[in-house]
Amino acid sequence: MAGQEFSTENFNPNDTKGKTITCKAAVAYGPGEPFVVERVLVHPPQKMEVRIKILFTSICHTDLGAWQGENEAARFYPRIFGHEASGIVESVGEGVNEMKEGDLVVPIFNGECGDCKYCKSEKTNKCERFGVSIMKKGVDCGDTRFSTMDRKPIFHFLNTSTFTEYTVLDSACVVKIHANGDWDFNPFIKTLTLLSCGVSTGVGAAWNTANVHSGSTVAVFGLGAVGLAVAEGARARGASKIIGVDINPEKFIKGRAMGITDFINPRDDERPVYERIRDMTNGGVHYSFECAGNLNVLRDAFLSAHEGWGLTVVLGVHTSPKLLPIHPMELFDGRKIVGSVFGGFKGKTQLPHFAKQCMDGVVKLDGFITHELPLEEINQAFDLLIAGKSLRCLLRF
Amino acid sequence: MAGQEFSTENFNPNDTKGKTITCKAAVAYGPGEPFVVERVLVHPPQKMEVRIKILFTSICHTDLGAWQGENEAARFYPRIFGHEASGIVESVGEGVNEMKEGDLVVPIFNGECGDCKYCKSEKTNKCERFGVSIMKKGVDCGDTRFSTMDRKPIFHFLNTSTFTEYTVLDSACVVKIHANGDWDFNPFIKTLTLLSCGVSTGVGAAWNTANVHSGSTVAVFGLGAVGLAVAEGARARGASKIIGVDINPEKFIKGRAMGITDFINPRDDERPVYERIRDMTNGGVHYSFECAGNLNVLRDAFLSAHEGWGLTVVLGVHTSPKLLPIHPMELFDGRKIVGSVFGGFKGKTQLPHFAKQCMDGVVKLDGFITHELPLEEINQAFDLLIAGKSLRCLLRF
Repeated sequence: MAGQEFSTENFNPNDTKGKTITCKAAVAYGPGEPFVVERVLVHPPQKMEVRIKILFTSICHTDLGAWQGENEAARFYPRIFGHEASGIVESVGEGVNEMKEGDLVVPIFNGECGDCKYCKSEKTNKCERFGVSIMKKGVDCGDTRFSTMDRKPIFHFLNTSTFTEYTVLDSACVVKIHANGDWDFNPFIKTLTLLSCGVSTGVGAAWNTANVHSGSTVAVFGLGAVGLAVAEGARARGASKIIGVDINPEKFIKGRAMGITDFINPRDDERPVYERIRDMTNGGVHYSFECAGNLNVLRDAFLSAHEGWGLTVVLGVHTSPKLLPIHPMELFDGRKIVGSVFGGFKGKTQLPHFAKQCMDGVVKLDGFITHELPLEEINQAFDLLIAGKSLRCLLRF
Repeated sequence: MAGQEFSTENFNPNDTKGKTITCKAAVAYGPGEPFVVERVLVHPPQKMEVRIKILFTSICHTDLGAWQGENEAARFYPRIFGHEASGIVESVGEGVNEMKEGDLVVPIFNGECGDCKYCKSEKTNKCERFGVSIMKKGVDCGDTRFSTMDRKPIFHFLNTSTFTEYTVLDSACVVKIHANGDWDFNPFIKTLTLLSCGVSTGVGAAWNTANVHSGSTVAVFGLGAVGLAVAEGARARGASKIIGVDINPEKFIKGRAMGITDFINPRDDERPVYERIRDMTNGGVHYSFECAGNLNVLRDAFLSAHEGWGLTVVLGVHTSPKLLPIHPMELFDGRKIVGSVFGGFKGKTQLPHFAKQCMDGVVKLDGFITHELPLEEINQAFDLLIAGKSLRCLLRF
């Protein structure tokens, strides 16, 4: 099947190494303004950096919120958004020995430097230097590696910036999935794109953060790609009941294939969702996952977990400055609540093995890619996401 | 040493078994009104109940708040408060086989029925029937076993009611520490009183809830008996730095003997306490404990835990209806927060072993008892607690 999924015909690192590349990118010039697909300059990778040719990129809600400028303090334009992608290494900067041109890679917005106290701890996948920050608008030194054709800087996004044919990342944010020349991975390139964010975030939340056990009960609030990946991860772990909660009935059809066994549409019944879930599960689920980024939903998720041992995992992004809608005394009921970033995966250490598991069918990812469009149609791709019509729409170059 | 600590001279169950006992008790007649020490009637234990003769009882802040009527919905008077005590079984009701008259026991406000789904789970010390509720004002069937001399019912408190010479509890709330006739425990009777609540709550929070590890760093907010017991538990586990935080400088002298290595008086410095703790611990402690029941303190405790792995354990009682002062996105920093009730101990299963550990000196409890008064002086004992002058004032009968 090699060659069916993407072509390396126009990829010749010898022509570009050490040079500034001119390529196409989707540039955002203001909050919510349509992306402009145009030629940009991508400068060579500096020390410990990697330049990669993006094969596919996708869009998740974090891109949407950032592009719309939800956080006013982070309105940096022009900016190249995007953080979920797959690609091949075009060239590496000084000091990068772990990968070379032609290697198949995925970028990770939650990097792993390997040297900080967090990277050295088994308890967290946080990284001191390359953690998640929408305020970071360049590479690690603060500079940008992109500019407009008239040499004005274009800002980076989440350590990654993948809405561009070529991007430059710190090597801490690039995971080598397989080495150059071994194209066994080729048929999986498209699904590997999902490991860069959504699927890893969802499956990892079930596996690493919650450690869902066989026979357990699970509730997933918000059935976007991340929520469905949680369900798929819980299914792979042998959960006996996986309740999906979403106000969009179309999500239910999709969800069935991804492990969801029961559905709740909050609008179908006046009773609180948590009461309905308690009734269905003899007092509450072992694990609930909040993937909607909504405080009311978060409280429903918290209260649908069983007293004494129920765990709620927060994956949704909450831009509101409001407090966690939990009373201190409610902690005494024994319900726990934790956050999960990038599914608790240490990207560089653990993602290659996870990619292998995906290839082996431990989790099934085929259903997540619902659309595919050329980069030029990125604005339509955003419309699909906003309308709730796509799970993942791949953009190709 | 047998006989030095208490006398069994006037204890003859044959005289009282099956009968209504007349004895002295401290009765509360209204919120904050001085206790009246008077004769009351204590009815015989019914099915699965136990009547015990209290040897010593103590006072903790939960008694104080309840007596003051902090929760208006729980203002039931007349009521016999008290939940931390030691005693001997006077008689048992039908069906109680695990203990008999003369056994040394401590009451537990957080019972263990042994049959409910919580008691059968290793993950919680919650009990479906005998959990903590200040709304429960009788024994399990709802009746009371106390009455005034003119036969008006007196309400129970927290499954226990120990400000009385004799009390009746469900056997789920009575822990046999040692059998009749083995008075090795006699010299420890006074300190065993502390296992009934404060010390078990504090040491257990460090051992069971947080699982404090050797060499770790700890911050304890609020150096009452519970906070100092946390410190003592952390010391026993080999914590390398135990920071005590309290606005009362007198607590610091006491705390040194109980494992506290460093002190912070929030009033000594304008900087937030969490910043000072981060400076002292290279970014934050492994474990922080909130024992003050104050939301601002709770936030300080949360922020003084290290990102990525820091755990905050809430022990303080928060009567305010306000929300947990944490933003949802702060969960993404990897700090965790959990509640702890009765130190996570399953009372009937685990307390006898813990009592043995206390006798063996694994944790040192001598310093916790700062005062001893006759029951008649209970109002003075409350004054000492309110003024922050006592850790534990034992009341004797």
